[in-house]
Amino acid sequence: MAQWRPPPHDRSGSEAYAGKVARLAVDAKMPLDNGNAIGPLDIAYETWGTLNDQRSNAILICHALTGDQFCAGTHPVTNKPGWWPTMIGPGKPIDTTRYFVICSNVLGGCMGSTGPKSVDPGTGVPYGSHFPVITIADMVRAQKLLIHHLGIARLFAVVGGSMGGMNALQWAASYPDHVINAVIIASAARHTAQNIAFNEVGRQAILSDPGWANGEYLSRETMPRSGLAVARMAAHITYLSKAALQRKFGRNLQDRAAFTYGFEADFQVESYLRHQGNSFVERFDANSYLYITRAVDYFDLAADYDGNLGKAFPGTKVRFCIVAFSSDWLFPPEDSRDLVIALNSEGATVSFVEIETDKGHDAFLLDEPEFYRVVSGFLEGSAQQQGLFGPVVPQGKLNPIRPDLKLIADMIEPGTRVLDVGSGDGALLCHLTAERNVDGRGLELSREGVRLSVAKGLSVIHGDANRDLEFFGEGAFDYVVLSRTLQSVQKPRGVLEQLMRIGRRAIVSFDNFGFWRTRYKLMMTGRNPIYGENERWWHSDAIHPFTLNDFLDLAQSLDIRIEHCLTIDGAGKVSSETYPRPHANFMAREAVFLLSHPRG
Amino acid sequence: MAQWRPPPHDRSGSEAYAGKVARLAVDAKMPLDNGNAIGPLDIAYETWGTLNDQRSNAILICHALTGDQFCAGTHPVTNKPGWWPTMIGPGKPIDTTRYFVICSNVLGGCMGSTGPKSVDPGTGVPYGSHFPVITIADMVRAQKLLIHHLGIARLFAVVGGSMGGMNALQWAASYPDHVINAVIIASAARHTAQNIAFNEVGRQAILSDPGWANGEYLSRETMPRSGLAVARMAAHITYLSKAALQRKFGRNLQDRAAFTYGFEADFQVESYLRHQGNSFVERFDANSYLYITRAVDYFDLAADYDGNLGKAFPGTKVRFCIVAFSSDWLFPPEDSRDLVIALNSEGATVSFVEIETDKGHDAFLLDEPEFYRVVSGFLEGSAQQQGLFGPVVPQGKLNPIRPDLKLIADMIEPGTRVLDVGSGDGALLCHLTAERNVDGRGLELSREGVRLSVAKGLSVIHGDANRDLEFFGEGAFDYVVLSRTLQSVQKPRGVLEQLMRIGRRAIVSFDNFGFWRTRYKLMMTGRNPIYGENERWWHSDAIHPFTLNDFLDLAQSLDIRIEHCLTIDGAGKVSSETYPRPHANFMAREAVFLLSHPRG
Repeated sequence: MAQWRPPPHDRSGSEAYAGKVARLAVDAKMPLDNGNAIGPLDIAYETWGTLNDQRSNAILICHALTGDQFCAGTHPVTNKPGWWPTMIGPGKPIDTTRYFVICSNVLGGCMGSTGPKSVDPGTGVPYGSHFPVITIADMVRAQKLLIHHLGIARLFAVVGGSMGGMNALQWAASYPDHVINAVIIASAARHTAQNIAFNEVGRQAILSDPGWANGEYLSRETMPRSGLAVARMAAHITYLSKAALQRKFGRNLQDRAAFTYGFEADFQVESYLRHQGNSFVERFDANSYLYITRAVDYFDLAADYDGNLGKAFPGTKVRFCIVAFSSDWLFPPEDSRDLVIALNSEGATVSFVEIETDKGHDAFLLDEPEFYRVVSGFLEGSAQQQGLFGPVVPQGKLNPIRPDLKLIADMIEPGTRVLDVGSGDGALLCHLTAERNVDGRGLELSREGVRLSVAKGLSVIHGDANRDLEFFGEGAFDYVVLSRTLQSVQKPRGVLEQLMRIGRRAIVSFDNFGFWRTRYKLMMTGRNPIYGENERWWHSDAIHPFTLNDFLDLAQSLDIRIEHCLTIDGAGKVSSETYPRPHANFMAREAVFLLSHPRG
Repeated sequence: MAQWRPPPHDRSGSEAYAGKVARLAVDAKMPLDNGNAIGPLDIAYETWGTLNDQRSNAILICHALTGDQFCAGTHPVTNKPGWWPTMIGPGKPIDTTRYFVICSNVLGGCMGSTGPKSVDPGTGVPYGSHFPVITIADMVRAQKLLIHHLGIARLFAVVGGSMGGMNALQWAASYPDHVINAVIIASAARHTAQNIAFNEVGRQAILSDPGWANGEYLSRETMPRSGLAVARMAAHITYLSKAALQRKFGRNLQDRAAFTYGFEADFQVESYLRHQGNSFVERFDANSYLYITRAVDYFDLAADYDGNLGKAFPGTKVRFCIVAFSSDWLFPPEDSRDLVIALNSEGATVSFVEIETDKGHDAFLLDEPEFYRVVSGFLEGSAQQQGLFGPVVPQGKLNPIRPDLKLIADMIEPGTRVLDVGSGDGALLCHLTAERNVDGRGLELSREGVRLSVAKGLSVIHGDANRDLEFFGEGAFDYVVLSRTLQSVQKPRGVLEQLMRIGRRAIVSFDNFGFWRTRYKLMMTGRNPIYGENERWWHSDAIHPFTLNDFLDLAQSLDIRIEHCLTIDGAGKVSSETYPRPHANFMAREAVFLLSHPRG
């Protein structure tokens, strides 16, 4: 049975790349959300790479609750690699040979930025529990001072996971003109009751530890060691999924063959948690833990807008990339979905991907190749669109084996807003953007399709037409396109209803089960003709085959107006009509309908 | 905004029904799993109702981690209702006017049974941390002494939720001849790494509290109050689902209009958790908490059998009812599923229901009518089968509008083992049990169907043919029946493959899409004929319509032998053949196939 061991200090490869460590001293007072001000203050930070002449290649990294500014290279205190070596570095998704990367310790932290363990200039002793309670917005205010100090008017991107994602969201809300892209990973626009509850357990463990000494432990030479360790242990459970903990430790025993019938760490998972608690105490300040958890609990971007989160981003031009992890139960995908819906309600440019993993919340720090491909694709797509590293290359060719796509494209008026449901690799959206200047969005089931799309600079949401059309608001688009898909959805009527809710018009293409050749096949062969020649019927995803007239029934049941109809016959000839003629149900192999709401 | 308040002491209705409180003093030593023995020992218990002359109506209730023997009536310490007033009482699912109900405080507890706060007869002071570490099996050993003392040779049922479910499972494993029914609710056959991790956080909070005083706090007049409170707070979060916490508290503030920018309980959820922690300290002993959590962590019924859980129940005759709650993340439905699979592997009589709720683990203590209906139906069905309260009433009529069911029943040899996939209200299984003496099991998607079935004494598992056939082992049945359902499953080939894995033979009935009238309809009407006359096509669940010949292709692709085929033509005439004749694909409206594995 493999035993769990604290990992050895691994410095391989990390020394080759070290950033520049620096500290900004701000002499003025900075206002705080609690109504007071703080200052002078220090902002400790590290940078990697080189700021270009246009100062347009800067990326700000925001760290999580117990992170710090040492995200790449080697951590100077622990001598271990920084916390995001998989994301940041030469040739990494955030490529330090191309971007100027900045990461600062948050206000309230304990790695050099002003926090509870800093000396209060007013008293000459550490702030301790006299440090003001700060907010995420206060942290971002301090980061803004730093960015200004570095001479950067506009960040190419602000990127963060967990609490770092909250920082990045707050940037987009507070300083929308100073951020081009925001990458929000495993995060949320507000802390839930359960999130607050876990933080409160940790705080109570610290506050009730006699070593905390009313917050003055630094002056009294005590330490709330056990309270901080218990807080870390409880929090650490929330960073991993149940499945990940089970896979990692299961019920394995630690250095023993049988139960000891006592309270030692019989189980590996106990030994692991105790190690997490104890090593955390060595590197983190208990008061910082109290203050930062409080800031996170207070975070609720919608609070100032009667709970309407979208109003925190009125008409925003920031391009968002939202990433969630399927097994993250601290910031579950639902939190990200709520954010996507809110941003969509403001017509924001949003891409969203849910990464399938059982690694839980910490997945954003671990080796999840798909996740890194999405982030690098998103940044790459935006850099191309901006011409950041070279001239803009136009795209937009359509696949010739999909004649319906050309017919659909021709139905769409230039300059409109279009949603493509099932947007694949984004070919139709690219074509519409290049040729008809539309403002296009996509919904796509395959993560690979989403990745290819965002790498083209498109705005695509990872989701399923069966349940995810709720992402989009009423009347949000001029056209909603659904091509060759209606027969494959679970609830065709529900989907069509959603298309009409979202769009002023919908364009739907499908194969006609009433086509004469289909009827003839069933009659003569005794095989269900919906299933293609080279396909076994039991693999088919055409779960609701319907005829052109069946479709007319459906449209009628929803009181939908047929504005136009194109039919393609067996020889490929296209007929264009305002309403299908009676024999279309017999003659048409395929049809494309332009649908709208009834007049009046 | 509604404020959260500690509930007032509600004694209404509870005084009307009080049980008998008693204590059994055992003078002998009882052996323990740790190799030692303990004794003399006390077992505190309460009973309700009357033991009948045959001593056959006794139900043992097993309590959860921090529960006690006061499950019904009024709790003598808190003066509040017992912990299971919705389950136990006159006219309740466990009806105290019919059953003799017993509940005892577990060994290691702090409500009268011997535990760490009891005086050690060897030293004359409380055991404290000198109490032996006990196991779930030790607890059950003590319960067995009590049941023996009460003169009960065989319990009609043992019922428990959470740790109580572990006790009940241990009963079935340790004393299979002394239990007729076991009801296992929101429980598991072993603690997972995450379960252990949460318990370890609680234990560390207690152990590191200076008030714990090495476990000798009772002699030293200290108390690990804050440690026990933090332990309870952390555990309490796991008892509720994220959604339930959010619905109950959200981000509501407690008795204030705005943040105080401090560490007071600004949020209702903080106030609630603090109350839970503080009130727990008033009623529970910290050492008991350590010992009982340890017993739960050590619990793993499969451990003695190389991880093969089924081997803990070899050829068991106990009838099991397993209940899980969809949003329970402490003991998620997967844990119950693993248990069902293991019991099935031993051919046990198992019913299983997953109750859809967002109330989390605590749902078993709350108002979930469907849950109570299942438990009362299960007990009722067994009582009828046993003739406990009156003569046994035979059942078994088939619905005349389902002629295929009669044909299927006639194909089945008497005295065999049969699984009905999609067993509905259990009509076919009742018929087969009554008329052909089969040992029948069901898999049914609707909870109502499962409930009706268990109330008939049938053994039915709540599940979906698309994913839940994995519940059943290879070759576990002589026949597996799937009637009029293959066209509605997501993966027809996968389902048929599963049927053949589970059964020596499979019986499959379906409508033939190649029937001449169907072909004619498509040809002449231009509507997809799979959809019935009175049905709109978009509501149909016939997502994979296939012809008789299509079915033969499928069977061939899986190398399945057609043993017999019955076809029903448009006039209702049945033809019986060993292999369908060529024109059957044209003439048959419906078909019933008897399938088996190829010879050799």
